[in-house]
Amino acid sequence: MSSNFGTLFRLSTFGESHCKAVGVIIDGCPPGVRLTEEDIQPQLDRRRPGQSKLTTDRQEKDQVNILSGTENGLTLGSPIALKVNNRDQRPGDYGDMQTIPRPSHADYTYMAKYGIKASSGGGRSSARETIGTVASGAVAAKVIAEQYGIEIIAWVSAVGPFKAKTVNLDTITRVEIDQTDLRCPDPDIFQKMHDHILSLKEAGDSTGGVVSCVIRNVPPGLGEPVYEKLEAKLAQAMLAIPATKGFEIGSGFAGTVMKGSEHNDPFVKRDGALGTKTNNSGGIQGGISNGEHIHFRVAFKPPATISQAQQTVNYKGDPVTLEAKGRHDPCVVPRAVPIVESMAALVLVDMAMRQEARHALNQV
Amino acid sequence: MSSNFGTLFRLSTFGESHCKAVGVIIDGCPPGVRLTEEDIQPQLDRRRPGQSKLTTDRQEKDQVNILSGTENGLTLGSPIALKVNNRDQRPGDYGDMQTIPRPSHADYTYMAKYGIKASSGGGRSSARETIGTVASGAVAAKVIAEQYGIEIIAWVSAVGPFKAKTVNLDTITRVEIDQTDLRCPDPDIFQKMHDHILSLKEAGDSTGGVVSCVIRNVPPGLGEPVYEKLEAKLAQAMLAIPATKGFEIGSGFAGTVMKGSEHNDPFVKRDGALGTKTNNSGGIQGGISNGEHIHFRVAFKPPATISQAQQTVNYKGDPVTLEAKGRHDPCVVPRAVPIVESMAALVLVDMAMRQEARHALNQV
Amino acid sequence: MSSNFGTLFRLSTFGESHCKAVGVIIDGCPPGVRLTEEDIQPQLDRRRPGQSKLTTDRQEKDQVNILSGTENGLTLGSPIALKVNNRDQRPGDYGDMQTIPRPSHADYTYMAKYGIKASSGGGRSSARETIGTVASGAVAAKVIAEQYGIEIIAWVSAVGPFKAKTVNLDTITRVEIDQTDLRCPDPDIFQKMHDHILSLKEAGDSTGGVVSCVIRNVPPGLGEPVYEKLEAKLAQAMLAIPATKGFEIGSGFAGTVMKGSEHNDPFVKRDGALGTKTNNSGGIQGGISNGEHIHFRVAFKPPATISQAQQTVNYKGDPVTLEAKGRHDPCVVPRAVPIVESMAALVLVDMAMRQEARHALNQV
Amino acid sequence: MSSNFGTLFRLSTFGESHCKAVGVIIDGCPPGVRLTEEDIQPQLDRRRPGQSKLTTDRQEKDQVNILSGTENGLTLGSPIALKVNNRDQRPGDYGDMQTIPRPSHADYTYMAKYGIKASSGGGRSSARETIGTVASGAVAAKVIAEQYGIEIIAWVSAVGPFKAKTVNLDTITRVEIDQTDLRCPDPDIFQKMHDHILSLKEAGDSTGGVVSCVIRNVPPGLGEPVYEKLEAKLAQAMLAIPATKGFEIGSGFAGTVMKGSEHNDPFVKRDGALGTKTNNSGGIQGGISNGEHIHFRVAFKPPATISQAQQTVNYKGDPVTLEAKGRHDPCVVPRAVPIVESMAALVLVDMAMRQEARHALNQV
Repeated sequence: MSSNFGTLFRLSTFGESHCKAVGVIIDGCPPGVRLTEEDIQPQLDRRRPGQSKLTTDRQEKDQVNILSGTENGLTLGSPIALKVNNRDQRPGDYGDMQTIPRPSHADYTYMAKYGIKASSGGGRSSARETIGTVASGAVAAKVIAEQYGIEIIAWVSAVGPFKAKTVNLDTITRVEIDQTDLRCPDPDIFQKMHDHILSLKEAGDSTGGVVSCVIRNVPPGLGEPVYEKLEAKLAQAMLAIPATKGFEIGSGFAGTVMKGSEHNDPFVKRDGALGTKTNNSGGIQGGISNGEHIHFRVAFKPPATISQAQQTVNYKGDPVTLEAKGRHDPCVVPRAVPIVESMAALVLVDMAMRQEARHALNQV
Repeated sequence: MSSNFGTLFRLSTFGESHCKAVGVIIDGCPPGVRLTEEDIQPQLDRRRPGQSKLTTDRQEKDQVNILSGTENGLTLGSPIALKVNNRDQRPGDYGDMQTIPRPSHADYTYMAKYGIKASSGGGRSSARETIGTVASGAVAAKVIAEQYGIEIIAWVSAVGPFKAKTVNLDTITRVEIDQTDLRCPDPDIFQKMHDHILSLKEAGDSTGGVVSCVIRNVPPGLGEPVYEKLEAKLAQAMLAIPATKGFEIGSGFAGTVMKGSEHNDPFVKRDGALGTKTNNSGGIQGGISNGEHIHFRVAFKPPATISQAQQTVNYKGDPVTLEAKGRHDPCVVPRAVPIVESMAALVLVDMAMRQEARHALNQV
Repeated sequence: MSSNFGTLFRLSTFGESHCKAVGVIIDGCPPGVRLTEEDIQPQLDRRRPGQSKLTTDRQEKDQVNILSGTENGLTLGSPIALKVNNRDQRPGDYGDMQTIPRPSHADYTYMAKYGIKASSGGGRSSARETIGTVASGAVAAKVIAEQYGIEIIAWVSAVGPFKAKTVNLDTITRVEIDQTDLRCPDPDIFQKMHDHILSLKEAGDSTGGVVSCVIRNVPPGLGEPVYEKLEAKLAQAMLAIPATKGFEIGSGFAGTVMKGSEHNDPFVKRDGALGTKTNNSGGIQGGISNGEHIHFRVAFKPPATISQAQQTVNYKGDPVTLEAKGRHDPCVVPRAVPIVESMAALVLVDMAMRQEARHALNQV
Repeated sequence: MSSNFGTLFRLSTFGESHCKAVGVIIDGCPPGVRLTEEDIQPQLDRRRPGQSKLTTDRQEKDQVNILSGTENGLTLGSPIALKVNNRDQRPGDYGDMQTIPRPSHADYTYMAKYGIKASSGGGRSSARETIGTVASGAVAAKVIAEQYGIEIIAWVSAVGPFKAKTVNLDTITRVEIDQTDLRCPDPDIFQKMHDHILSLKEAGDSTGGVVSCVIRNVPPGLGEPVYEKLEAKLAQAMLAIPATKGFEIGSGFAGTVMKGSEHNDPFVKRDGALGTKTNNSGGIQGGISNGEHIHFRVAFKPPATISQAQQTVNYKGDPVTLEAKGRHDPCVVPRAVPIVESMAALVLVDMAMRQEARHALNQV
């Protein structure tokens, strides 16, 4: 396990589906930040299951509780412990899993790694584990919003074969994103995505999708080359989210077919400083933010848990037919939106603190 | 700067283009590994510039020297310091850079971050910095090859718009890859890629490309959920390589359009244990290796340094025309092949050691 | 804040005196360890205030609750979250502290560091913070006891000017230690220590003392030179305990007056392996355990909170007379015994896991 | 091995006695620091053997070479690699060591840990390893001297049974310390110490001693409770120095016999801020600097390598008489003075950077 993340703003998360609680400790949060549960709950609400018929029917209220680290609504600089109790525990749903590793789930690999099986199968591979990420990400986002005006907005840009049109990175808002359950801001493609998800749900199947994200107002200078380049930590952060299979920043894979003369972002004068005319770099050059919008995309596979019958083998290797009975998401991307935002915030707050440390002792 | 990588097998690299030497310290390498310079030099030779007319004309011999950590050809368990002297220093080539930040290079962001400019502009964003990665990666690869039989093979799978056909992941070898300077094992597409690069070189331009990689014989159980899932660390590792813009594992972005019923990898009995029938997971499930081939792809943008004239602005914001004079690569992917392999080896050796620590104390 | 400790067996603690709860997450505990609250509670009981009239009168039951990481009484390998609710909160006791920094307490330095004041004054400098250490230390101690047979026993070896006679390091047990509230196994000095503490309590004063510790059955080879030598991590661990002012191992400060010919520990044959005839080294040579008993001593200052009037100044610098009203310990060493044992266990479990990782890949 | 130290200002050292070179990489040094070899060499000269007849006769010039990280005499913010070549290699001196582990040296424990034996026996336990510490410590000391005016001065305060009188912590300087080879500023005791060392050298024996240290002008607020309290990191740092057996800060072990009413340091108004009237705390309260002088003492055992015959056993367990033939120090404390100063500087620079990061984002 490595449930830790960050060098100066450090998380440590805990909890699986069927224990008493899930949560996180944040060690290193700056003092003096106005913080109550109300700053954290909204992102948890966007993450929780049961929000709409597009997601799983499991109802989880996921009320967060600040156990330590604040007094009179201000952070003290000491560790902030955040806890969400587990309620809707139905280990009975996982009956077959005692003998059959679910295909493309983490049952088999957790057994290989730990030699012991949680009743939920994949242990911390459960989506429930992301509560700690989202709760701490909300704190991180608040810190950098107030300090630097950084804004982080993610949205669903593809569901299965249906792709949303390009959004305006300068103006897109979370309010705009949240106008539909799907969190896709393109009204033209919305209905197709919606119907695709529902028809797969009906069929006991699932679909993948893509979440896009823009980060605005990032000060130039964030990122720690060489092994903790800003895009490298974002890539790690995104691939740490369950069900992700890919990450691309700026021009991404499409940039591989371009010529340098097309791809380069020439500098221009802007507001008395330098900006770039284009942004194929995605706001990062040499592993360091350049002040332009950071934008990236994250690929999510179709959820592994489907209720269609699957031909597979049990732990002994005997052929079996597996029919899952739990309530699961036919498509995770709408709920993944706040998780992507949270991981991005956690990367940025840590990078900002590290750069401030350097800056304070810079003797140039 | 974060020139460190790894938790138990830990690197610390140093050096930029115009200092005395570049290199790396490996702290935590297991003792008793047979190791001489001859185990390291071949990968450095595959990385160095001037190998063929497809790459830059700069000639760098890049002879590695083991300064410490071995005796009588065996590692002692103490830090292994590896050094490569810098020779071909031509700071004169970078004249304009004193006043003009090169588009899509790291000159501007290094200045924003550090407030001081190395004569080479982007400091450690130089490809030369990767020598430490490749030298230590060769050691890591040797350790896991001898301990587990792990094989890591990368190749060029696309150059600009030209894509190689699928390779056989079971059998592809480095010898096969190295039959051409391009390191693309598809003979049908080779000539088109070759001509594309040379014509861009002629035109003072550059092109992007894709490097693919397979890792064979990885024992099940490697990877440290949740924030250091195996794919998350591979993603970080790959995006830490200069000029990378994307990473995808297994089905990757293509997996986002699939249904769960297509994408899931059913288990099958194989050699007395469990394998999977398909491998959309790319050898990793829930952040942990499952024993199947790990395979992934890395997107490289076209090199930013081109000799075509570019319209940009200088640090003051005044419009200028920049014409770079140095000798540079029209396409980095052939030389990136050993770098991708090295970063993969560095991720795996650390994950293997961490899993062994857990395994030794497992009380199941 | 750095509430984290350990590289592979990693803690993250939280909580101050007047928040909802205190506790700890352990990330990296090996799977398969039999663990329930009953394995943890005994050390918390030895640590808690109100055990006897020698300590503070505050009554805190400090019942520990395992929130995650176990199922059916076995650890899963996932993070183990341990929580103890805060009950006996009396912020009213700290009235003067809003304006007066208590001498030799952490009120002033926490304000200097964080710019904000918890109602308890010194925030996490409170002894209550040690609950997370003791709870996780109990888990660590269980892991290494079952894996290696390691035994860790601490005791009170001095209270003020009263020093206990030397104990037999081969045979001393916790049962023997706990025969008195003082946790000093020397019956001859017990009454003097006891009376000294009570008379100081009566006088509104306090006293310092020394805790000694022996660790038996440590396998040779633990410790990570050079900066994480075993004695260096023990020193850090002990000086991280509130109120500590010194650490010495083996011969310690007394060894500085010896000659090498007296101090050296000659090797002898023992049970088919090598042991040492004397043990001035304290079980560690070159930063690595040699298989002999590890023994060390920790100096505790007299508690800073006394009820005698003190002449000092307030935050503005105006002279004031401070009279503390809370209930506090006249001497911390009896309660410090389990804390010392816990920190020692946390150091050793991490070192053992790191050595096992190396050992598994050792190719000699 | 853990040859790494620091969170933001991070070292990685390398090298043993009989390899090509020893040295260090500093990653995270702030940019813009004026730095040439001349800033580093003086402390290496104070550390090197052969300075006087009080130390070993081995002559090592230990010229440091900056390989990377500076340009035009200024640090770039990139890793600074420092190298010192090994010259005076006499593996022949260690003949017996192939079969006999030297008492109280690290030969036996290195073998237990690594399963392989460097020709020098204890591998990195050699004093030569401290070159990396001292070289990087000189850089750290320069950074904090220029940024905060921090001064670090260590001296020999005891040799065997001979103790120096108390020095004036406000005024003591390195110049004053270096007036004698012994680095003891008490002229009254100097001759006794000197004669003691020489007579032991003559007798093929050795002696222990104590190094004291004061750190002036430390800003309030440094130190990261709870596990990285300032005194905890200093303790780790000092116990990581070869041959150390103890550490005490402020009142230290002597404080354990005091009453709280004597030990507490009342606050006073000083220069418009708060200071303390006494300084039993040693400049640290609750793990955080309070602005007073930090002062501590480090115990050094007598060097294990003596030329007197020793009765011991070989690796097989057979009784043997060992007579060491190398040239060794009869007393390490004079040479340990710059090492103590270096470790202190390395702790402080890292703590200062971490506090600056917090401070920059403090939203009080």
